[in-house]
Amino acid sequence: MKLAILGYGNLGRGVENAVKQNPDMELVAVFTRRNPSEVKINSDAKVLNVSEIENWKDKIDVLILCGGSATDLPEQTPKYAKLFNVIDSFDTHARIPEHFKNVDNSSKESGKIGIISVGWDPGLFSLNRMYANAILPDGTDYTFWGKGVSQGHSDAIRRIEGVLDAKQYTIPVEKALNAVKNCENPTLSTREKHTRECFVVLKDGADAQKVEREIKEMPNYFADYDTTVHFISLEELKANHSGIPHGGCVIRTGKTGSNKENNHVIEYNLKLDSNPEFTSSVLIAYARAAFRLNKEGQSGAKTVFDIPPAYLSSKSGEELRRTML
Amino acid sequence: MKLAILGYGNLGRGVENAVKQNPDMELVAVFTRRNPSEVKINSDAKVLNVSEIENWKDKIDVLILCGGSATDLPEQTPKYAKLFNVIDSFDTHARIPEHFKNVDNSSKESGKIGIISVGWDPGLFSLNRMYANAILPDGTDYTFWGKGVSQGHSDAIRRIEGVLDAKQYTIPVEKALNAVKNCENPTLSTREKHTRECFVVLKDGADAQKVEREIKEMPNYFADYDTTVHFISLEELKANHSGIPHGGCVIRTGKTGSNKENNHVIEYNLKLDSNPEFTSSVLIAYARAAFRLNKEGQSGAKTVFDIPPAYLSSKSGEELRRTML
Repeated sequence: MKLAILGYGNLGRGVENAVKQNPDMELVAVFTRRNPSEVKINSDAKVLNVSEIENWKDKIDVLILCGGSATDLPEQTPKYAKLFNVIDSFDTHARIPEHFKNVDNSSKESGKIGIISVGWDPGLFSLNRMYANAILPDGTDYTFWGKGVSQGHSDAIRRIEGVLDAKQYTIPVEKALNAVKNCENPTLSTREKHTRECFVVLKDGADAQKVEREIKEMPNYFADYDTTVHFISLEELKANHSGIPHGGCVIRTGKTGSNKENNHVIEYNLKLDSNPEFTSSVLIAYARAAFRLNKEGQSGAKTVFDIPPAYLSSKSGEELRRTML
Repeated sequence: MKLAILGYGNLGRGVENAVKQNPDMELVAVFTRRNPSEVKINSDAKVLNVSEIENWKDKIDVLILCGGSATDLPEQTPKYAKLFNVIDSFDTHARIPEHFKNVDNSSKESGKIGIISVGWDPGLFSLNRMYANAILPDGTDYTFWGKGVSQGHSDAIRRIEGVLDAKQYTIPVEKALNAVKNCENPTLSTREKHTRECFVVLKDGADAQKVEREIKEMPNYFADYDTTVHFISLEELKANHSGIPHGGCVIRTGKTGSNKENNHVIEYNLKLDSNPEFTSSVLIAYARAAFRLNKEGQSGAKTVFDIPPAYLSSKSGEELRRTML
């Protein structure tokens, strides 16, 4: 399987590493909007400007789109689905139906497969919500994120005047988690589910009190949460907060029995040292599925809900049944 | 969707309850090897002797086989796959390849679907092993069972001379679980993974010491485990140990990164008040998939690895993408 990447950021680098762990895959090209000579990669793939991508039409089995959901993917995924089997990690939940339709039109036209919204949320978390809902129709869903770094919230802090750098952790509230796991079926407000912890490096002469107030009062991002702000040195930020860990859990609790007397808890839990590297590993597995589905003659947009699990694995059906069932 | 059950034990009763939670399904018949007049059920389905089952060939969309894996299912599933879409919870892991082949032959001949080994292990646990392996190729798998009642181990104790009744709990060892979750990659012996706790009611005049020794030294069942035996009264057994709870977890830890510097933990956890009711709920969801796959013209044996997740849900693809992705 010959793969290519469009966009060489954290996610693109993650895909590059993940491919090395899968002997049935090869990364042949990295496409970038930058000047290719300025992009140093860690593999033997060719680095090319995106303007050359059409020439690779028949040389790539799956193109992995590693851009952002805000502006890149809504345009790129439908565009490149006209040429390639594509896969993306589009994560703007509210715009998924629209994105699905655009990719579906393009990939049906080209006879290719386009798998959208792959990763862990959307992605593995969605799968677990869906399986658990199908199995326990009478129940309640909960999703908790963290402890982990929210890139969007860290960026929001960095935009405040007087801030040199910052890292924000989203942390699930232990009490809420325990109530859910104990089948207490709590109704939880935003504030009751997660807290936010911020590590902030100030510029010289900045007003710490003012920055802290601006963070805590920021609508959408922080105002609805209990937020803690720590001011630290740049050295400390680099030493202790340079990773991009994340994780979280999806829990469904539900009832069965003639009098609904029996409670069940289905919990799916991720603890990830590197959010982009894990997301890339999921993308790679679904790239394998895209390739296979297309080889079978299928086309159109797909999500994790549509893909038979075995298509993700390099093992044969026989081997899977023998070793993992 | 019209469903029927063959075998009305704990699992069959569970299916009967689960069907009531799914408005798109109806239980039309319960087939039994017993005299139908002796079988009291909790729904409007017909109770019939299994000898009449052929007459129902065109009146049932999916037949759910609720027999045991030791002797019932190896014979029943291939047999009835010649007439119906079937689904079973065959759980003798070592014999799955053979069972798959037998069911595949029958159901290809009849043009029906036969889904085998559905439940939580095999079933949901298998799925999670498979997904996690496809995503993290460089890692280690762990499965822990419990805390829960092992029916087989409880039965083994009941067969000992002097035992009136008994219940056995399988309990994962907390220390081992924590080592796994901390990515310590431990190599665990049977004894290090689970302990066994037995609640035993003696017959009048039985020798407690002798019974305890026989339990603890029983090969395969108890000899390789740290086993605790409590002698209690029949009243206490009925009051405190009449449920059939179970559960457990599948954990895969794996590494990514250019120097394998990042650890990831994928954990799937079940806590079930009623093992048979939960298993039935899984069977029901896969019955929906069997029906749909067959309507599309597919036939042959399938496992959880082969079924696109969306086929389990009563919701449309559009609704799933909008609400759960």
